[in-house]
Amino acid sequence: MLRVIAEDFIHPEAVPLVLPLYRELVAATRAEPLCIAYDLLIDDKDPGHFIFIEEWSDQAALDLHCATEHFTRLVPQINAHQSAPCRITLMSRMVDSA
Amino acid sequence: MLRVIAEDFIHPEAVPLVLPLYRELVAATRAEPLCIAYDLLIDDKDPGHFIFIEEWSDQAALDLHCATEHFTRLVPQINAHQSAPCRITLMSRMVDSA
Repeated sequence: MLRVIAEDFIHPEAVPLVLPLYRELVAATRAEPLCIAYDLLIDDKDPGHFIFIEEWSDQAALDLHCATEHFTRLVPQINAHQSAPCRITLMSRMVDSA
Repeated sequence: MLRVIAEDFIHPEAVPLVLPLYRELVAATRAEPLCIAYDLLIDDKDPGHFIFIEEWSDQAALDLHCATEHFTRLVPQINAHQSAPCRITLMSRMVDSA
């Protein structure tokens, strides 16, 4: 199990430009056979703060995702509108309730 | 739909003290009737960085959670070991793939 939070910070005026790119990325990623969950949310307090909440089986599955045609084509187009670098948190351990 | 990411930053030497408190909080919260999802993960790069990934039906459900006996008793005990303030992100809009 590998959970990922990937946070993008986009210039406010560029949000209408990145939304169709994000939608294509989400649809194509959810169609990947190794994708368990891939949601893209918007911070209620900042419309330029986009948060991916992801789940993959393991690091190898995430590496395959980052090498896909849709990822390598769309992510640079999105990142051209960044106001700050992406923040990535990888989590492979859960504090369970046992 | 309300998604929440709540990030706690705990002094490394206090991690063994907070783990049982976190486990009790997770178990009690998952038993709340309005809780949709409530996972607590650990940052692979920082064992004192704890990340709640939550889902609630709406703000009222989250407000009820924050008023529960287990929340109001356990969270101050956990926060006594913080190395930095909690960071909370509320997200009620999803960039869907439509």
